[in-house]
Amino acid sequence: MLTDFELMRELAKKSERRIVLLVLDGLGGLPVTKGGPTELEAARTPGMDRLAGEGALGLTLPIRRGITPGSGPAHLGLFGYDPLQYIVGRGVLEAVGVGVRVQAGDVAARGNFCTLDGQGRITDRRAGRIATESAIPLVERLARLNVPGAAFEVRHVKEHRFGLIARGQGLQSDLEDTDPQATGVPPLSVRARRPEGQSTAELFNRWITAATEALADQPTANGLTLRGFSTDPRLPTMESVFALHPACVAVYPMYRGVSQLVGMDVLDFGGESPEDEFAAVRAAWDRFDFFFVHIKKTDSRGEDGDFQAKVEAIEAVDRALPRLLELQPDVLAITGDHSTPARLRSHSWHPVPFLLWAPATIRPDASSTFGESACTAGGLGTFPAKDVLPLLLAHAERLDKFGA
Amino acid sequence: MLTDFELMRELAKKSERRIVLLVLDGLGGLPVTKGGPTELEAARTPGMDRLAGEGALGLTLPIRRGITPGSGPAHLGLFGYDPLQYIVGRGVLEAVGVGVRVQAGDVAARGNFCTLDGQGRITDRRAGRIATESAIPLVERLARLNVPGAAFEVRHVKEHRFGLIARGQGLQSDLEDTDPQATGVPPLSVRARRPEGQSTAELFNRWITAATEALADQPTANGLTLRGFSTDPRLPTMESVFALHPACVAVYPMYRGVSQLVGMDVLDFGGESPEDEFAAVRAAWDRFDFFFVHIKKTDSRGEDGDFQAKVEAIEAVDRALPRLLELQPDVLAITGDHSTPARLRSHSWHPVPFLLWAPATIRPDASSTFGESACTAGGLGTFPAKDVLPLLLAHAERLDKFGA
Repeated sequence: MLTDFELMRELAKKSERRIVLLVLDGLGGLPVTKGGPTELEAARTPGMDRLAGEGALGLTLPIRRGITPGSGPAHLGLFGYDPLQYIVGRGVLEAVGVGVRVQAGDVAARGNFCTLDGQGRITDRRAGRIATESAIPLVERLARLNVPGAAFEVRHVKEHRFGLIARGQGLQSDLEDTDPQATGVPPLSVRARRPEGQSTAELFNRWITAATEALADQPTANGLTLRGFSTDPRLPTMESVFALHPACVAVYPMYRGVSQLVGMDVLDFGGESPEDEFAAVRAAWDRFDFFFVHIKKTDSRGEDGDFQAKVEAIEAVDRALPRLLELQPDVLAITGDHSTPARLRSHSWHPVPFLLWAPATIRPDASSTFGESACTAGGLGTFPAKDVLPLLLAHAERLDKFGA
Repeated sequence: MLTDFELMRELAKKSERRIVLLVLDGLGGLPVTKGGPTELEAARTPGMDRLAGEGALGLTLPIRRGITPGSGPAHLGLFGYDPLQYIVGRGVLEAVGVGVRVQAGDVAARGNFCTLDGQGRITDRRAGRIATESAIPLVERLARLNVPGAAFEVRHVKEHRFGLIARGQGLQSDLEDTDPQATGVPPLSVRARRPEGQSTAELFNRWITAATEALADQPTANGLTLRGFSTDPRLPTMESVFALHPACVAVYPMYRGVSQLVGMDVLDFGGESPEDEFAAVRAAWDRFDFFFVHIKKTDSRGEDGDFQAKVEAIEAVDRALPRLLELQPDVLAITGDHSTPARLRSHSWHPVPFLLWAPATIRPDASSTFGESACTAGGLGTFPAKDVLPLLLAHAERLDKFGA
């Protein structure tokens, strides 16, 4: 059986045709009133509606039916990497999310502050969800620790969460979590799953001892747990699989980091509005043939539960669209990495609106607006997000025929 | 690569939210006149139509396109078990269908009466489809046989079919069928596929010899064949995979048995109308969080070829629906395990109408009636039945996010 990637390596070819993948994070939504519109349907989007009329619509399944993705797996899917096959450890994702690049040999873990009682037993696994401003000085304390055997980097994430990265010689990442997933018991020690990880486990245990001493005077965040030990997943690059020379235009560290994991060049630019991001695409237009452009605000407003603000974030992208279109991409896809309905205030499993515009090769469908209902009836149907990339390549005529 | 079940074990969590899976056996149908309605479309179903208006529709594929399922695999699919991966032997299904619980160590086989000539060669592999009333006394004869080495249980199924279960020490089920799938040759001996099954094979052969002697005076049913030797498939329980505490409300042994195989509690109750079944759900409402409710008549009337009687069976469920809805399930799915079009008088491969109602989390589609055409245009699309369960869990908000 040929795998997806074997097929792509065999068929993908270099070309001058350019593809833009515009991701409005958390784009998919839900109505908040019976029979009412979703966020995307409520938004005034004359630009996207025109593209829908000229192009074709569908819905994507980020992972599979019913599964709500985190940002990491959801983006890997859109980049063509089956998120159930190419698993990136939580430690690496957490590091990536705060802008640390995990390299071969590094070991990253996700850390949680917790509360310990007098006997060292966990009484709160999240240290009362300690406020970010209280947690930052504690993370700084940990960052100053010196434990022989490796260089440790500690970065605050949010509330009780931080990222820990060890950099040294011969480190192994096949280690057990220390979070016992229960209260009333002490954190576990780091244990190696294989004999060759023994010294790395001991190294992390020495760091934990030093860190726990450094937190001893704290009322709530006086302990910690580590989980998701992982290292650079060494994903095959998009260049090697899809014959693309890809660039990332994103403001937030998480998306820049995931793009780096698949070998994209991450572009630096000033500002953070859709106009600024599209200007960054223009500035690099001649140097790349695939542009991933990431818009964060749609997801953030969804997580805030603010339907109207999410509508406005979508409209802001629509207003800026002419700047992207004047570059005359051969293929433009507009979609989300998952749904973030304001009504649920969180990521969700609902299929994601997908718009494909490719003047030279599209089979247009009957749609004339961009929204969930139109996408449900769209010509592209409902399909796994990991198939987006082959579809974009096809519409850019960058795939050879399979078989004679 | 993460498997379906690894993913579910990682993400599924306990919750107070309750799910009802209402299965109208053989629900899917076909029109009997050009341009006419299917059984479901002909039925007056104001209750289901209202739920369709508030919810979303789709079509399920029980196994895969073109494949007609038996009751066992079809239900396993709806319970989230890929029926091509979790294979339950025919012997076990036959036993389950007549209410015998096959336990670890038992070996079950499906038996067929056949007709042998003077030289012991098969002349009719189904003994002229001997009538049920003629077969029952023969099965009783076989049930009285005493063969040292194991206790044998024999149960009549229908016409020429019976179930045989051996219960003893050290029995093996990896045995070859004795049905040669041809006439003009004698039944085969039971043969072991592995050396450790040798004594079990000899045991069954001794039983066959005794049985054939006991049938020697019969004109047509004077021989038998055995196939589908199998034992308890030891399926992982729904509790272990999906974090559900599931109950089964069904009248017929087959459905109660398959539910037991996946670890459901099978509820006892009086009566067999939809009202009686819904009353059984009510009585157990506080003790479980997942209810599988099975309606048999839709399938039976389809197999009878009686379009109008199938319509009436559907309408009877619709009339009883308020009793189910007043329990206020968080998620309700109404579907079939497969299609049984009256026009074909048998199970078929046609995709099955699926209605999902979940007031807190549904993305409604444009549908306002429950029927095959509406389901074809439904917002949930056409999808494998094995994805039903993850979808129900998602809509009950019983799944964590995948990845950071």
